[in-house]
Amino acid sequence: MRLHEIPTPALVVDLSAMGRNIRRMAEFYAESTCKLRPHFKAHKTPAIARRQLAAGSCTGLTCATVGEAEIVVGEALTNDVLIANEVVGPGKAARVARLARQADVKVAVDSDAGLEDLTRAARSEGVEIGVLVDVNVGLPRCGIAPGAQALSLAKRVAAAEHVRLRGLMGYEGHVVSIGDRVQREAEAKKAMEQLLSTVRIIRRAGLPCEIVSAGGTGTYDITGRIEGVTEIQAGSYVLMDTAYAQLDIPFELAFTVLGTVLSRPKPEVCVADNGHKACSMDHGNPKVKGIEGASVLFLSDEHATIILPPASTIRVGDRIELWPSHIDPTINLHDVIFAMDGDEVVEVWPVAARGYSEHRAPKGPGG
Amino acid sequence: MRLHEIPTPALVVDLSAMGRNIRRMAEFYAESTCKLRPHFKAHKTPAIARRQLAAGSCTGLTCATVGEAEIVVGEALTNDVLIANEVVGPGKAARVARLARQADVKVAVDSDAGLEDLTRAARSEGVEIGVLVDVNVGLPRCGIAPGAQALSLAKRVAAAEHVRLRGLMGYEGHVVSIGDRVQREAEAKKAMEQLLSTVRIIRRAGLPCEIVSAGGTGTYDITGRIEGVTEIQAGSYVLMDTAYAQLDIPFELAFTVLGTVLSRPKPEVCVADNGHKACSMDHGNPKVKGIEGASVLFLSDEHATIILPPASTIRVGDRIELWPSHIDPTINLHDVIFAMDGDEVVEVWPVAARGYSEHRAPKGPGG
Repeated sequence: MRLHEIPTPALVVDLSAMGRNIRRMAEFYAESTCKLRPHFKAHKTPAIARRQLAAGSCTGLTCATVGEAEIVVGEALTNDVLIANEVVGPGKAARVARLARQADVKVAVDSDAGLEDLTRAARSEGVEIGVLVDVNVGLPRCGIAPGAQALSLAKRVAAAEHVRLRGLMGYEGHVVSIGDRVQREAEAKKAMEQLLSTVRIIRRAGLPCEIVSAGGTGTYDITGRIEGVTEIQAGSYVLMDTAYAQLDIPFELAFTVLGTVLSRPKPEVCVADNGHKACSMDHGNPKVKGIEGASVLFLSDEHATIILPPASTIRVGDRIELWPSHIDPTINLHDVIFAMDGDEVVEVWPVAARGYSEHRAPKGPGG
Repeated sequence: MRLHEIPTPALVVDLSAMGRNIRRMAEFYAESTCKLRPHFKAHKTPAIARRQLAAGSCTGLTCATVGEAEIVVGEALTNDVLIANEVVGPGKAARVARLARQADVKVAVDSDAGLEDLTRAARSEGVEIGVLVDVNVGLPRCGIAPGAQALSLAKRVAAAEHVRLRGLMGYEGHVVSIGDRVQREAEAKKAMEQLLSTVRIIRRAGLPCEIVSAGGTGTYDITGRIEGVTEIQAGSYVLMDTAYAQLDIPFELAFTVLGTVLSRPKPEVCVADNGHKACSMDHGNPKVKGIEGASVLFLSDEHATIILPPASTIRVGDRIELWPSHIDPTINLHDVIFAMDGDEVVEVWPVAARGYSEHRAPKGPGG
C-alpha cells in the first residue's frame, strides 16, 4: 500500500526518522550511568516500544496508566515497569498486584490512601509491589513536598508489608518545554536539587533509594547528566511534535496526521479531513508538512481549513500531512499507525493501549 | 454498579437530563414543517440516536463520516441518512455506494472531483446516490459559492447519471455560537438568505430542491423557523457542553467526564485522573460539577489539576466530575458511555462509531 492509498485521516510514521531518533537517544545514554526508561504513554504502541528497547541503554519502560502497564506486561515488552503515576482505588490496585506476579512493577505513591490501596491489594494477591515516593519538584500536579514530608511517607512505605521502597521520582514537567537552554538548565537543576536533597535525607535515615527517576524529552541531556539521577522518563523524542521541535534537541519530526483534501472553496484555501478528532490541538495548531507557505487557519472536529500559498496547484483528492503540536494526545485518537518506508506502508501497528480496557465494548463496523 | 464503582476516567450520562433535552427538541419541531435531522457525529452512539429518533419530529440522521453512516445503516437506526460532508476518493465513495443499496443516502458535494468519485462508485455498484450541493454561507470551510457557481454545479449533478440532486445544504457554523441572540439571529438570517436565494435560482432553472438542510444547536429555534429550511442538523443539544450552555437555549448539561482524585498535594489543590486524553479542551477547560468554587487550573494528558475552595474535605479516592467544553471530541475519546439513573449505572453504551473502521486492529487488554 502506498501513502495515497491509506484511508484518511490516519497516523503515518517515517521509519527512518524514527530509527534515527531512537539511535540518537540510545547513544546518548550508552556511556552514562543514568539510563533511559522510555515513556510508553507517548505512543501506546508495542511495535515502537520494542524498537526503543532493542536499541539499548534502557532500564525498562514507563507507563502513565495501569492499562498501559497491562499491555507492556501482556506483550512481554519488558519485565521492568514503572507506573509513574498514582494508582488509586481497590480495582486499579488489584490490577497492579496481578501484574506484580509476572513483572517487576513499581508505582508512584504520594499519599497514605494510595499506599493503603496498594498494600491491601498486594497482600490479597500475595505479591510485593515496588514503590517510588513521588516528590513534587515544582510542577503543580501530583507529588508530596520534598524533605521532611517525603521522608515521613518513605518511612511508612518502608514499614509497610507487601510493598517495597525502591526510590524516589520527581518529574520536572514545568521545565521540559522552556525554550532557552540556559534557563531550562537552571530550572532543571533547581528542581533536581529538591529531589536529590530528599534522596540524601532518605539515605541518611537508612532507607533504600536505588531508583531516582525524573526527566523528559526536553531535559534528557540536562537532567540525564545530573549525578544521582538514575533514569530519565523521556517519551516524545521517538516521534516528536512541533512543540518539542522548537527546542535545541537533535530529534526529528517523525510522524504526521495524513488527510485528504475534501474541498477547494477558494484559490488560497483547501479543506482536508484531518481535523482535531484526528490531531490534538492542546499545544496549538499543527503545521503543514511539505507545502512552503501553507498554514492551518483552524481545525474543527472533522476538518482542517488550510491557507495555501499563491497559485497552489493542490486539488481535491490530494493528500496533505499535518505535523501535530503534541504527540501523546494525537496518537491517543487513533487505533493504528501506518509505518512508512518512504512512500510505502511496510507495517500497520495497533495502538494497543489506547482507550480503557475495562470500558472496551464489542464493535460493529466503525467511524 | 454505582457511580463510585465505575473505573475512571469515564463518560457518564444523566438519563433524565438527556431525556428532557430530547423531549424539548422534539416538541419544538412537532408542529413545524421544518424537521430535525440529529447529528450523529456529536455522540457516535446508537443507543442515543435511537432515543432521539423515537422522540419523533426527525427526518433521519446526519453523519460527518462514511464510517458513522455505516454504523447508522448497519444498526438500522434509520433508512434516511445525510452525510453532511464531502466524500472524496474511490475507496470512500465505494463504501457510500454500498450503503446506498440498503438506505436512502445523501452526500454533500461541492466539487466536480467529488461528484465524479460518487458517480463512478454508484455506476459500479448499480445504485443511485442522493446529492445535496454544499453551499458556503460564511463559515470558512467547505461549500461552493452561492448563486451562479452553485447553480452550475447543481446542473452538473442533475445531468450526471447514478446520482440524484436532492437539494442544498448550507451550515452556518460561524453563527451557532454567537452569545447575543439578536446578533445570532441577524447573522443566521444573513447566512440563510444566501442559501435560500440559491434555492430560488435552482428552482427557477427547473431543478429539484426538496431538501434544504442547515442549522445547529445554537440556531435550532432561529434557522429552524426560517421558511424554506426543511431540516436542522443539531447534535450537541442532546448532552450539551459548557460552550453551548452559555447560550439562551433550554438544554441541560447531561454528561460529565468522571475522574478519581489521585493526589492532594496542597489544601487548595487536588489532582484527578480525567485529563485531556479523556476530556477535550479545544473549547477551553472543563468546569467542575458539584463543588462550589472549584475550578480547573489546567489539564494535562492524564491529569486534571483542580483548585478547590477553602477547607475542602475532598480526599484521595473521591470521585470528581468535569463538564466538558465540547461534546463531540470528548465523546470521541471514549469507547463506552455509562448511562446513569441517579447514582446507578443502568446501561453501558458502545460509542460504536468512534475511530476509523478501516484502521481498526485487534486488541489485547488495554489502556
